[in-house]
Amino acid sequence: MADEPMTRFPVPDTEDLPADVRERIEAETERAGFTPNVFSAFAYRPAQFRAFFGYYDALVEESSLAREELELIIVAVSGANDCLYCVVAHGALLRLYAEDPHLAEQVATNYRTADISDAHRAMCDLAVKLTERPARVEEEDIEQLREHGFSMEEIWDIGSTAALFNLSNRMAHLADMRPNEEFYRLGRD
Amino acid sequence: MADEPMTRFPVPDTEDLPADVRERIEAETERAGFTPNVFSAFAYRPAQFRAFFGYYDALVEESSLAREELELIIVAVSGANDCLYCVVAHGALLRLYAEDPHLAEQVATNYRTADISDAHRAMCDLAVKLTERPARVEEEDIEQLREHGFSMEEIWDIGSTAALFNLSNRMAHLADMRPNEEFYRLGRD
Amino acid sequence: MADEPMTRFPVPDTEDLPADVRERIEAETERAGFTPNVFSAFAYRPAQFRAFFGYYDALVEESSLAREELELIIVAVSGANDCLYCVVAHGALLRLYAEDPHLAEQVATNYRTADISDAHRAMCDLAVKLTERPARVEEEDIEQLREHGFSMEEIWDIGSTAALFNLSNRMAHLADMRPNEEFYRLGRD
Amino acid sequence: MADEPMTRFPVPDTEDLPADVRERIEAETERAGFTPNVFSAFAYRPAQFRAFFGYYDALVEESSLAREELELIIVAVSGANDCLYCVVAHGALLRLYAEDPHLAEQVATNYRTADISDAHRAMCDLAVKLTERPARVEEEDIEQLREHGFSMEEIWDIGSTAALFNLSNRMAHLADMRPNEEFYRLGRD
Amino acid sequence: MADEPMTRFPVPDTEDLPADVRERIEAETERAGFTPNVFSAFAYRPAQFRAFFGYYDALVEESSLAREELELIIVAVSGANDCLYCVVAHGALLRLYAEDPHLAEQVATNYRTADISDAHRAMCDLAVKLTERPARVEEEDIEQLREHGFSMEEIWDIGSTAALFNLSNRMAHLADMRPNEEFYRLGRD
Amino acid sequence: MADEPMTRFPVPDTEDLPADVRERIEAETERAGFTPNVFSAFAYRPAQFRAFFGYYDALVEESSLAREELELIIVAVSGANDCLYCVVAHGALLRLYAEDPHLAEQVATNYRTADISDAHRAMCDLAVKLTERPARVEEEDIEQLREHGFSMEEIWDIGSTAALFNLSNRMAHLADMRPNEEFYRLGRD
Repeated sequence: MADEPMTRFPVPDTEDLPADVRERIEAETERAGFTPNVFSAFAYRPAQFRAFFGYYDALVEESSLAREELELIIVAVSGANDCLYCVVAHGALLRLYAEDPHLAEQVATNYRTADISDAHRAMCDLAVKLTERPARVEEEDIEQLREHGFSMEEIWDIGSTAALFNLSNRMAHLADMRPNEEFYRLGRD
Repeated sequence: MADEPMTRFPVPDTEDLPADVRERIEAETERAGFTPNVFSAFAYRPAQFRAFFGYYDALVEESSLAREELELIIVAVSGANDCLYCVVAHGALLRLYAEDPHLAEQVATNYRTADISDAHRAMCDLAVKLTERPARVEEEDIEQLREHGFSMEEIWDIGSTAALFNLSNRMAHLADMRPNEEFYRLGRD
Repeated sequence: MADEPMTRFPVPDTEDLPADVRERIEAETERAGFTPNVFSAFAYRPAQFRAFFGYYDALVEESSLAREELELIIVAVSGANDCLYCVVAHGALLRLYAEDPHLAEQVATNYRTADISDAHRAMCDLAVKLTERPARVEEEDIEQLREHGFSMEEIWDIGSTAALFNLSNRMAHLADMRPNEEFYRLGRD
Repeated sequence: MADEPMTRFPVPDTEDLPADVRERIEAETERAGFTPNVFSAFAYRPAQFRAFFGYYDALVEESSLAREELELIIVAVSGANDCLYCVVAHGALLRLYAEDPHLAEQVATNYRTADISDAHRAMCDLAVKLTERPARVEEEDIEQLREHGFSMEEIWDIGSTAALFNLSNRMAHLADMRPNEEFYRLGRD
Repeated sequence: MADEPMTRFPVPDTEDLPADVRERIEAETERAGFTPNVFSAFAYRPAQFRAFFGYYDALVEESSLAREELELIIVAVSGANDCLYCVVAHGALLRLYAEDPHLAEQVATNYRTADISDAHRAMCDLAVKLTERPARVEEEDIEQLREHGFSMEEIWDIGSTAALFNLSNRMAHLADMRPNEEFYRLGRD
Repeated sequence: MADEPMTRFPVPDTEDLPADVRERIEAETERAGFTPNVFSAFAYRPAQFRAFFGYYDALVEESSLAREELELIIVAVSGANDCLYCVVAHGALLRLYAEDPHLAEQVATNYRTADISDAHRAMCDLAVKLTERPARVEEEDIEQLREHGFSMEEIWDIGSTAALFNLSNRMAHLADMRPNEEFYRLGRD
């Protein structure tokens, strides 16, 4: 079971995939040294594969935030949503980008007691409030981040990163996506 | 205030936008007879504008579900998330596609007492569970839809439509997006 | 199904009702141009019919609040309780008394982002807190309304209007009361 | 403080009250041997005094349920709503009508482990569901009571008793109504 | 049923118990005039009997708090956890130690409206927050108690008393422990 | 900060501790190769130190469950309570006893999707229900474990292990106990 990318939907054979999807998977596999299961899973619906990774690329490549900050938001949101795939896969990325072997478990379990700066705490406060009680986000939540020096573009990007992983966590829960073994180990040293 | 597309972030001038973003907005404006505020709002971050509407297009254009079913899911999810913009804008679309002037308010308030078929009730059950308690979605939730005759692709698409609007509702809450006046009226007759 | 006043209990024939109940129903029918279903439903238990509309009359006729304010409280409470009958029926009244075709959907979906004054926002804050977490209402909630200029009588009436619709919403949920078609349309122009 | 009928609103002098309100208070005082504080509190708004006790009388005097059952529902609902006045005052009535000195604390704390029959357990299940998650009450909740032999009128009355105390508990929370000392002691022997 | 110490696990015969467990039970029986059911219940697992009452003794005998304060915390926590055994048994102890026949029902129902000092209110605030939302306890919760004059040792003991009854309430719920009749009556005069 | 056993209370010097407490700490330090911070933290109140570890020893040494099962329960409960210290420290023990480097993160994030047997799933279901909604545990929860072959003693021990860590998690939250660095690494290979 643990070797399957997901347990609730069939995983398509790579050779049956559209060329662009296959190429993206090959590029990711080469980069990581293994195929992260989220790519194999989303390939079940190629148009959505393109849409999901297109969104992810847009957030990562043109972000006003540091990559480490993106991963911090993603792990805090995924922890709040109890999402195994994203906690483990992005926990690995957080360890790597933050160069801290302990941060992922701290943030996934309870970002409020993690060893992070006050500004990053405020960043996670907005991301998790938007996750857990989105209708209660009000002007004062925005202002709190302004007081920590975040620009409006950064606040938007904190929100959109949290929002994308509220999508992503739900797809992982729906499909029961399984983290690759490699992710559990990455960035521990 | 009600005339602004959103109250918490600046809305860019159309002439300052990249050509493809401007063209998409013009096409939507022509189609609808007005510019739905979600387009003006997302233009604040053009790369995310492309990503968001790209995802939306992928879901709508290659869906295994009828358009009316997509809107039913969207309104049920947006109601559960108390999202004004999406309830009003997609409520209008639901009225139009379902040719039913009352369905939107029924589904947004409480899909459990809406005048919908048992299969659509089951569809909304999954969409709203994935919204409210995503970590509790299990194999038996999938099976319940199978019993109502949904294919695996349809179940995936129910989930991904719910997931995208969990993203969308959160962006609308973050930015305080305001529904255009036109949406309140559309499809009432 | 949508034509029935309620789906879970039998609706009595008008001619079988006690004279005073029948007369009240006739008067309401004449006033509205149709018989609001809540009258037909409560007639199932005539003593409770008298009690319920007696309470309602006491609140409306001797209120320290403007009628528009009563309807604002009722729609906010009924939205928080996901009550279709009251959202649709009192949504219509709110549109009429506030002379605003959009306010009902705003308040029912999320009064926090509705186009209302700060004083009315505070009024809804108390009404919805009393609805969702009644045991947490404390002295400071009263004081907040005092700061917005509300008298003690007005604060009591905000509370009792919220309280009556916590009763009413529950009866509508129990019986599955269905809004009349007319209510969906009233006050839209 | 404990001697005041309520702490957040002024209690009117008896002599300033309308004659019918004063007479009702005198009759209650004679019957109980003391003036239950809920009468003194509601007298703050005489029209609502009449409405509230009119509703209560309608439920008690023409109920399809035994008085002991009404008090059982009231205590279960008031316990779920953490309402001190109603738990203590109606706890006393439950002890008296059920002739059981321990039942009130059992039901107020957790009716699920109280020494009650299966039918009364089902009755409380509906009353408390209607209290805590009213929008989730569905046809099957009604059917469960039917299986225990309750008539449709009895089910309506279970619901309306629960509904009235959802009103009553909220007024007691708003006003911080204080139970009379006598209620703590009644029915203990 | 009400005469059994618990309904879900067998209660061992006293003569089959290890000598030290039997002696403790005899000492408690002599002290109270009856055997509190929690002793009979925990005797099902003698090593845990010793551990549980050892912890309880450590908290009571070396507490930095007054005995009345311990019982106040215990009843507030047990009320929040809806635990019948602890509400009734420690409600009796609270009445006795506080020499107040009404305090137990006030605190068990809603400590926020109980007749207690501001310092004791703050004490219960921490105990109940630690019960209901333990991961949200932060530095400022500690500071609030400091402002009311509590020492660090007292704050620790407030927390550990709340923590032990979060254990105890759960064992009582698991086993369905039943309060002895005597507890309902103690301290009422 | 990460090097302190806890941030909210002073950590006593080892030489100031009673002999038995100091000896226990030395024995644990020798066994583990480092002093687990929970020992340093609880030493703040020596009588409670003895009580807490006495309870823990009673559960571990005379358990009817395998040690791996105890750690599974502890990690599931601590994950549900978002407790960093216990998730990390007992996560390490779970990896070691289960000889599985991935199990801890699976169980802490969402035991429902962990690679565990159906019987262990049922075991965690009871432990987490007792954690999150203790008042809702009823006879049928016990029966479900019986169907998986658990004895009554095992069911009691599942419950008491869950209960002790509901105590322990709360003490860790109160004191902000910090996991030793060693725990993050143990059992990964």
